[in-house]
Amino acid sequence: MTPDWIACDWGTSNLRLWAMKDGAPVGERRSDRGMGRLDGPQAFEDALIEAAGDWAAPPVTVVACGMVGARQGWIEAPYIPVPAKPSASGLVRAPTRTPGLSVHIVPGMSQADPADVMRGEETQIAGHLALHRNWDGVLCLPGTHTKWAHVSVDEVVSFQTYMTGEMFAVLGQHSVLRHSLTDGWDDAAFEAGLEQGFDRPERLANRLFSLRAESLLSDPAPGAARARLSGLLIGAEIASAKPYWLGQRVAVLGDGVQADLYLRALAVQSVPVERSDATRATLAGLAAAHAALTA
Amino acid sequence: MTPDWIACDWGTSNLRLWAMKDGAPVGERRSDRGMGRLDGPQAFEDALIEAAGDWAAPPVTVVACGMVGARQGWIEAPYIPVPAKPSASGLVRAPTRTPGLSVHIVPGMSQADPADVMRGEETQIAGHLALHRNWDGVLCLPGTHTKWAHVSVDEVVSFQTYMTGEMFAVLGQHSVLRHSLTDGWDDAAFEAGLEQGFDRPERLANRLFSLRAESLLSDPAPGAARARLSGLLIGAEIASAKPYWLGQRVAVLGDGVQADLYLRALAVQSVPVERSDATRATLAGLAAAHAALTA
Repeated sequence: MTPDWIACDWGTSNLRLWAMKDGAPVGERRSDRGMGRLDGPQAFEDALIEAAGDWAAPPVTVVACGMVGARQGWIEAPYIPVPAKPSASGLVRAPTRTPGLSVHIVPGMSQADPADVMRGEETQIAGHLALHRNWDGVLCLPGTHTKWAHVSVDEVVSFQTYMTGEMFAVLGQHSVLRHSLTDGWDDAAFEAGLEQGFDRPERLANRLFSLRAESLLSDPAPGAARARLSGLLIGAEIASAKPYWLGQRVAVLGDGVQADLYLRALAVQSVPVERSDATRATLAGLAAAHAALTA
Repeated sequence: MTPDWIACDWGTSNLRLWAMKDGAPVGERRSDRGMGRLDGPQAFEDALIEAAGDWAAPPVTVVACGMVGARQGWIEAPYIPVPAKPSASGLVRAPTRTPGLSVHIVPGMSQADPADVMRGEETQIAGHLALHRNWDGVLCLPGTHTKWAHVSVDEVVSFQTYMTGEMFAVLGQHSVLRHSLTDGWDDAAFEAGLEQGFDRPERLANRLFSLRAESLLSDPAPGAARARLSGLLIGAEIASAKPYWLGQRVAVLGDGVQADLYLRALAVQSVPVERSDATRATLAGLAAAHAALTA
């Protein structure tokens, strides 16, 4: 099959490709050769061609977002400072050896003060705006590094990143909490953690140790500590991000369980919140970048 | 040399022994055979005898505090619930094979709500109280898990643990921040982090990511991110522990650089604060336990 072009989401851990035909995805391929597993810029072209298979028959155009454009990626696509339209300009062409292969990388966005950066999320935001004309409000993009972006008149005005997802992973695996986190999930413990985290977000480092102490002093249900840890961290984030969501139109742009947790956390605060599909948004954002490229 | 008895501080990573003669330490020996490196309860006796060398010639009495009394230690010394006098009762005799070797383990303390535990610190607190008669106030014991203890009429009334030290280590080694933490130390960055952490403790997860973004967007001085991370975490802890130190007599019970950082952080908030030597306190606490044993 010969696609019109290839859409590419290239993160730290994975590479996802879609064959695009007449404006729609007609196939998807994946590889685990994310930026983190590639040894230098020269390794990206082979990884792409291998993952794309017969789609890569030249001439072919690839539009890619994510860590592929980082300093340690294929080629650096310098950040676009906010306020700005996401992924509408600044695409960088990657160096290629294969004749007829043309790869364009969407730049991330940056904010000077407070210092912040994103790579990949700008494409999802652009896609969300392409799918929802004249959408003004706040987007929450759950992830390892969850982003809150204030969007107005098709521009990202400001944004804020929380290390919540990574703190959950790193503390759960490498701190003393690893002895307390049993498998499973306890919904009531998640909600209790959410409330504690939201009510006293400044006590996080103390509440974390309490999780450990509880498991020594009592015999919590399986999965209770894990769910409570998640609730504490997300609750504290929701409290801190209040200036972003209070009185705003809010959408959670994400897939899977993590997006569900943020939706529940916002519902507890009675925030009316929409859900926007992350894969659809990524594809729409890459399509918008492709259209701008060929315009 | 034959000591009157042996004082022992046995933690997760290390074992410290002091030969006690006429109420004073006359020698110190160390070993890296902490609880975490010993394979089950039966391994403790050999580790102790090896580290003590000729001090262990029977008959000999050892009084030990720390993780040696944890469930994974030599023998569990059940927590004493607060409010209570620290390490005044509840010593547990460890099973021994060597005739004439008698080992007594000081129990830790626990708090039901909010759930909290300590092991080892209760001995330092007891020692501080033995060294400073009628001392009422709040003790801050910096460490991997920093403790704040409210002490009144020789009892621990309540206490609070913060995972600050462990968060610093785990986030610095295992999160994306590891790419940003250069060697060295920048005092101005520590103070800036302290202020940010104290002013907006609820924004911790966001400030952590800002550290990463700053190192991508600018070129911070060597050691700036490390010092800022330390400042952010300690600043947030000081803010959260305010009900403990506000209007109280406060002493930092600790040694080394970490105690210095807490002293500086409290000084920034104009808290008049004393310093109490941790090793001296440990020895005084173990001596008090030994005295109670033989009384």
